[in-house]
Amino acid sequence: MRAELLAVGDELLYGDIVNGNAAWLGGQLADVGVTLERSVVVGDDVGTIAAAIRSALDRADTVLITGGLGPTQDDLTREGVAAAAGGVEVRRVEALADELARRYERQGRGDALPSMNFRQAELPVGAEPLPNLAGTAPGVRMEIGAGVVYAMPGVPFEMTAMFTASVLPDLLRRAGQPAVVVHRVLRTAGMWESSVAQALAEAVDRLAPIGNPRIAFLASEGQTRVRITARARDRAEADVLIAPVETAARAALGDGVYGSDDDTLEGVVLALLGARSATLAVAESITGGLLAGRLTEVPGSSAVFRGGVVSYATQVKASVLGVDADVLATRGPVSAETAAAMATGVRDRLGADYGLSTTGVAGPGSAQGHPPGTVHLGLAGPRGVITRLVRLPGDRARVRMFAVVSALDLLRRTLTVGSDVAV
Amino acid sequence: MRAELLAVGDELLYGDIVNGNAAWLGGQLADVGVTLERSVVVGDDVGTIAAAIRSALDRADTVLITGGLGPTQDDLTREGVAAAAGGVEVRRVEALADELARRYERQGRGDALPSMNFRQAELPVGAEPLPNLAGTAPGVRMEIGAGVVYAMPGVPFEMTAMFTASVLPDLLRRAGQPAVVVHRVLRTAGMWESSVAQALAEAVDRLAPIGNPRIAFLASEGQTRVRITARARDRAEADVLIAPVETAARAALGDGVYGSDDDTLEGVVLALLGARSATLAVAESITGGLLAGRLTEVPGSSAVFRGGVVSYATQVKASVLGVDADVLATRGPVSAETAAAMATGVRDRLGADYGLSTTGVAGPGSAQGHPPGTVHLGLAGPRGVITRLVRLPGDRARVRMFAVVSALDLLRRTLTVGSDVAV
Repeated sequence: MRAELLAVGDELLYGDIVNGNAAWLGGQLADVGVTLERSVVVGDDVGTIAAAIRSALDRADTVLITGGLGPTQDDLTREGVAAAAGGVEVRRVEALADELARRYERQGRGDALPSMNFRQAELPVGAEPLPNLAGTAPGVRMEIGAGVVYAMPGVPFEMTAMFTASVLPDLLRRAGQPAVVVHRVLRTAGMWESSVAQALAEAVDRLAPIGNPRIAFLASEGQTRVRITARARDRAEADVLIAPVETAARAALGDGVYGSDDDTLEGVVLALLGARSATLAVAESITGGLLAGRLTEVPGSSAVFRGGVVSYATQVKASVLGVDADVLATRGPVSAETAAAMATGVRDRLGADYGLSTTGVAGPGSAQGHPPGTVHLGLAGPRGVITRLVRLPGDRARVRMFAVVSALDLLRRTLTVGSDVAV
Repeated sequence: MRAELLAVGDELLYGDIVNGNAAWLGGQLADVGVTLERSVVVGDDVGTIAAAIRSALDRADTVLITGGLGPTQDDLTREGVAAAAGGVEVRRVEALADELARRYERQGRGDALPSMNFRQAELPVGAEPLPNLAGTAPGVRMEIGAGVVYAMPGVPFEMTAMFTASVLPDLLRRAGQPAVVVHRVLRTAGMWESSVAQALAEAVDRLAPIGNPRIAFLASEGQTRVRITARARDRAEADVLIAPVETAARAALGDGVYGSDDDTLEGVVLALLGARSATLAVAESITGGLLAGRLTEVPGSSAVFRGGVVSYATQVKASVLGVDADVLATRGPVSAETAAAMATGVRDRLGADYGLSTTGVAGPGSAQGHPPGTVHLGLAGPRGVITRLVRLPGDRARVRMFAVVSALDLLRRTLTVGSDVAV
């Protein structure tokens, strides 16, 4: 099955917004083996929309449209689909109008739905509505010749909900394919994308040779995700396809895997600490507050996270964290000894069970004889203190981001070795 | 003049990357009054690329292509342009090959340029090269019939450099328009986009009524930028067009404007402190490290920024920052009194000239009777301490981001009132 995308909206052409919908839909179609051959953006003009639909249907079996379903005069996708279908009428559907009015009434604004909004209750004759689970405008499904056109809203969360619930199942049915697509994501930290891919090479060849399940590697922000995608008749069958691949992947990646699906590294670290009723404090130099900022992104983190000290000036490392002036003078602020003393100092001063520290050189340029990317991490706990030296690539922002991930991952790995915690 | 965009690359269709180039080029073309009618993405296939170019030239005067100029076998834009031009030959240009080899040699790797890379020295017969100021692959300019095709690299910073230096001047010349486009950006903080637009409404009508200069408002991350764009024959003439609009805009916006062009709020704050030889420390509760993280993004910030305390747990506010236990008990951690004591405490304990603090409720949900978005800021200096209560919109992440911007802006405004600094 061959597909084309058509996004409608002047704001896309003028560059006011980026066409992220196309990237998301492209990924979804690739996952289920539908070939996407072209992706087009046009402005708010009925003739242009209709011409783009007709020319796409000359080449492809289906056209997925996003945008242009709103209530205003420049929302013209319904009229464009009608024109592409040979000029059929666009007509108000009373059941849709009633539903729009009821929905508005439930919001309790006390006035009547503005009449312009009833444009969203109109459909080309011969089209079917697609339910909008996340907003007001219904989608449009229309067969034109041997092809089928789906029109979805441009608002991303409305579009993704409608695609998943209505468009994808219908597409797969037309393609004679199984009807559900299930993803399982394994999240790794402390491994580069190439190491993850290499570790899984054998498992991929053995367990996913025919493309179902399909395995993809996605690297971003210092972490690599492994996405296992299965197509099947139902959820249970998809789970059966995914299970052996997931088991093999987890075995190959070992403790590189910190979680699955929507887990975050900071969330997993906080949960590991919470399960031990342990608290955490951080002492930051190179990361300058970003480590604390990441931990406090998580709602409820205050149950575990006591706080931190950003000891940016060397003197603050001594005065606030109690790092020995002698250590700072002889080993320097960028050293394992300083990292250890920072971790111990913040644990002590903030009354936490664990103290985690970062010190290093973010760049640009070397400092105190150390090249950018040199980072010492410290972790102090009830049983003692450990340090790690890591060498991180990239510019100032990337070195700092990798240092945050490395520090969180050091704590995670230390807490997950079982009862035998080193610190 | 009517233009179309064509982006080439399977990775765009599969959703591995978002087509940000199209949004950037769309904005650039809108700025100079070129009408962008369509934006298309196709995969790495010569026939498809050629068909897309031909069909775009049927409708438009120019086609701007991005991507497919790399050295590998799936980089096929040169061949696509040649096919669209009626099947002309793609031929190696010795001058380009020499330049590629020299460039490689200058990188000092010691080996010879891999032969595949010489594909980047090839051009369709009749085309001209466009210099690549930021990378290796030259661009392609080719007249086909009455239209002109420009092919640029897909790597964003190479593309933007080539568009600005070569493509845009050539386009404007063909359109019979002035030859340079100059932007001046005024950066504001502490004002919503609608307030900025309203403050400038009169100035816009009076000074920029005919669209040259053109004024745009761009809101992101709690700040609003005012972009003044002028087209002129040369830089000096553009500056003359921009000057009165900039003067009027600055007068209308007053101390809402913190800087221009590439300035950042944190950079301006650090520079203001540096000019007074003053130092800064921060005490963070709601922002949880993000304020310190933002200040330490700036290389060289260590000359001014001493560090901070993330006093997330209430007890840490007392033990590390010395906030009075009585204040915490009677006024609560989310109060002006606590914000003032945090600012004073961190100024004192870290030995800084200024102490800046944040405490509040990020959400989701209320805390201690305060709705999410309630934020108290404190600023302590040599002459005393001030506080501000702000009410910020949005979810947890946005409230925290707005709180960082509000705190930086409080410090900026206090430092820029001249010699009469309140704190």
